Amino acid sequence: MGWGDLGAFGEPSKETPNLDQMAAEGMLFLDFYTANPLCSPSRAALLTGRLPVRNGFYTTNAHARNAYTPQDIVGGIPDSELLLPELLKKAGYVNKIIGKWHLGHRPQFHPLKHGFDEWFGSPNCHFGPFDNRVLPNIPVYRDWEMIGRYYEDFKIDLKTGEANLTQMYLQEALDFISKQQASQQPFFLYWAIDATHAPVYASKHFLGTSQRGLYGDAVREIDDSIGKILTHLQKLGISENTFVFFTSDNGAALISAPKQGGSNGPFLCGKQTTFEGGMRAPAIAWWPGHIPAGKVSHQLGNVMDLFTTSLSLAGLQPPSDRQIDGIDLLPAILQGKLIDRPIFYYRGDEMMAVRVGLYKAHYWTWSNSWEEYSKGIDFCPGQNVSGVTTHTQEEHSNLPLLFHLGRDPGEKYPLSFASDEYQRVMQQIYFVVQQHKTTLVPGEPQLNVCDKAVMNWSPPGCEKLGKCLTPPESDPKKCFWPH
Amino acid sequence: MGWGDLGAFGEPSKETPNLDQMAAEGMLFLDFYTANPLCSPSRAALLTGRLPVRNGFYTTNAHARNAYTPQDIVGGIPDSELLLPELLKKAGYVNKIIGKWHLGHRPQFHPLKHGFDEWFGSPNCHFGPFDNRVLPNIPVYRDWEMIGRYYEDFKIDLKTGEANLTQMYLQEALDFISKQQASQQPFFLYWAIDATHAPVYASKHFLGTSQRGLYGDAVREIDDSIGKILTHLQKLGISENTFVFFTSDNGAALISAPKQGGSNGPFLCGKQTTFEGGMRAPAIAWWPGHIPAGKVSHQLGNVMDLFTTSLSLAGLQPPSDRQIDGIDLLPAILQGKLIDRPIFYYRGDEMMAVRVGLYKAHYWTWSNSWEEYSKGIDFCPGQNVSGVTTHTQEEHSNLPLLFHLGRDPGEKYPLSFASDEYQRVMQQIYFVVQQHKTTLVPGEPQLNVCDKAVMNWSPPGCEKLGKCLTPPESDPKKCFWPH
Repeated sequence: MGWGDLGAFGEPSKETPNLDQMAAEGMLFLDFYTANPLCSPSRAALLTGRLPVRNGFYTTNAHARNAYTPQDIVGGIPDSELLLPELLKKAGYVNKIIGKWHLGHRPQFHPLKHGFDEWFGSPNCHFGPFDNRVLPNIPVYRDWEMIGRYYEDFKIDLKTGEANLTQMYLQEALDFISKQQASQQPFFLYWAIDATHAPVYASKHFLGTSQRGLYGDAVREIDDSIGKILTHLQKLGISENTFVFFTSDNGAALISAPKQGGSNGPFLCGKQTTFEGGMRAPAIAWWPGHIPAGKVSHQLGNVMDLFTTSLSLAGLQPPSDRQIDGIDLLPAILQGKLIDRPIFYYRGDEMMAVRVGLYKAHYWTWSNSWEEYSKGIDFCPGQNVSGVTTHTQEEHSNLPLLFHLGRDPGEKYPLSFASDEYQRVMQQIYFVVQQHKTTLVPGEPQLNVCDKAVMNWSPPGCEKLGKCLTPPESDPKKCFWPH
Repeated sequence: MGWGDLGAFGEPSKETPNLDQMAAEGMLFLDFYTANPLCSPSRAALLTGRLPVRNGFYTTNAHARNAYTPQDIVGGIPDSELLLPELLKKAGYVNKIIGKWHLGHRPQFHPLKHGFDEWFGSPNCHFGPFDNRVLPNIPVYRDWEMIGRYYEDFKIDLKTGEANLTQMYLQEALDFISKQQASQQPFFLYWAIDATHAPVYASKHFLGTSQRGLYGDAVREIDDSIGKILTHLQKLGISENTFVFFTSDNGAALISAPKQGGSNGPFLCGKQTTFEGGMRAPAIAWWPGHIPAGKVSHQLGNVMDLFTTSLSLAGLQPPSDRQIDGIDLLPAILQGKLIDRPIFYYRGDEMMAVRVGLYKAHYWTWSNSWEEYSKGIDFCPGQNVSGVTTHTQEEHSNLPLLFHLGRDPGEKYPLSFASDEYQRVMQQIYFVVQQHKTTLVPGEPQLNVCDKAVMNWSPPGCEKLGKCLTPPESDPKKCFWPH
């Protein structure tokens, strides 16, 4: 979902009354970021509090490439990483993930091996349908074992866009919350719905109800579900004891627009890019009785902060044996403080840009290659900022392109290199970048090797279902990451 | 000001708390339009309830040209046009215009000859400073006579952007409202501030206070002033008896961005164009005790509707001897009804596009000429939609470019001509356009002739001030309108 997809963020058909209400009752974050312009690395960062370049969710196969966890990926979340649910367990939390995991699908990467107690959902995107010979359909798990596969047992009608998955994820969430409330155990629910990821889907009740087409139907169903979850917390009397945060893992995918892609509002480009449209995300914090209603925050935030903030809420300290990039947002949320911190925009192994205060400096620019662009792959449709949305990888390290995101949120007018403002600001930014780069210890890259043999041929539980497939022989190769 | 300049419409720094509050207490219009992508014609339409092509505020000097009322314009609002204040007088209203008139500056076009009882402000834009020999500085009037000139007696510091004009306009408004309340006379106040028009200005108190630079400072001062006006109405106890409407006369001028230009949010291009960014305007209706708080309307609205709606509020009928384009919005505002009506997008003498429901059909496309574009004049900076933001005037009358503004508010993905949807929708639109065109009686074009002799050399009152200048000999010529 993109920054511009919510009414509270200016979506012109204003079809998200529940999220808008959540914002009216809570705090709206206008300057909140994902940790990466792509899903898997951003989610790994959310759960580890660390940049993908540290936690291993990146590739070195080529310079500055977006990489994720398709079915043939060999890597996943390393055992050495400490995930939020692992740490919360120490404070007695019961942890559940509902929806998309995306941190690796081989047995050692299973979410229940990384701190979650329960799982309903899937390890990969709901791509498909596949033929189960060249490619297996994506499994859906309940806890340790798969209980079926997308398209086979969990229907997605690509023609009409109908699928009941969000309703299932909603019911799972409501049931889990009820159960935890009844047993009086603290809980962490990672509600990782994916209806707005192409192929976009919605249930019958929502199909055709949006001005925005199928994508809007999906947004409306998510909005409706969130309203139901918040109401459920209130009805159970635990809303003042439950911190809720809504955000996205990357900007709207404009390449899928308009049929399957959302809006990044006034920002440049979309998913896959390190322009604002690729990484500025909608974000709302809700905690009645603690967060004053209707607040707006300009705190620079990041999904990685949810790691540190959640630990803080549970009375826990973040690990001290490793670099944590997420900060504790509670002073910003509860006392309205503004904490000074930079935002780093990575694409794979490269720091493409950095934001300090209202300024953003691009050290590298790239939308995608001419070769791809000429085939119609366009991450910035309708937008072309000369020298900025470049189709070759352009290095600007000596003279970074500098933008003032207050005056120019769309990154269209780089500051003059000769201006006093440029000189003054870049001095400050150079220092921030130098400190970041000289202290950076990159993790072992997890997204380098692909092998068709590791696909979801025979996930645990397949025997009971008679759904085990025969993998091909192992043939590990460097993954090809074109963007 | 543009659609995307208010927090309530998704401006990313959310610096308009008073307008946002006005929206929270009133009704937000998301699909509200100006009558033209340029100021003078749009204002003439607001006050007459008629399209510029009917009321004469257009040119036939060249095809589809934006024209306005610079100092050398010979034309202005024809006597045959009935303006809102003229009609409101019949119901006992006292009418005041504060700020920019822009409907012609020669004596016969004076606002007090067209229904207004009072005036504080200026006939033209605050361009300048001029040298008073080749070009006179723009006069500022109080009622019938000029009381000084911009830059000479009413300072605007182009270097710092400082000017106290909005504060003067605010004080005038508060005083007028107080006076009317005291005398218990109904009033119409046309508060036509211009701080966000280049050269953008703000008073000292607001300079440097916005994240958005000088333009944001101007927006903040306007926002603050509107808050003071609404509070004043409440303090006087007449808020439940006063209908207030906030809107703009064209989209944000992206050509002036980022220093002097605002935001059109997710919409394409800006001022001067018939894309959504040129004509979709922010709009808020406020009337405590009558309009339920926090409502959002998708009614297709237009500044011309303020003519008809205001008459309706005063218990008056619109004139029946002429075509009125504005509709009475009260059923939409008070009862939440949706009234079916098209929006026509004109550029000069040409209907460029039409909106019916969520569909918009472009019969002509043009951003501006290659010649201008190559000189850096760009109404769509950073945006280029192939075949849409054309730099030659392209006619599509046989196969209009059709967009669905719900799925594609940015006008980036024209519907396939071969689709059933295209065929079905265009049948309906053809009918609307045919009816419009066959019944259209264009007015006498007022913006064709320019003459340096008609400039503000010696406005009434200049003798008292010793500020009369000698006009050159009359030399009427066809005005040159490049866009």
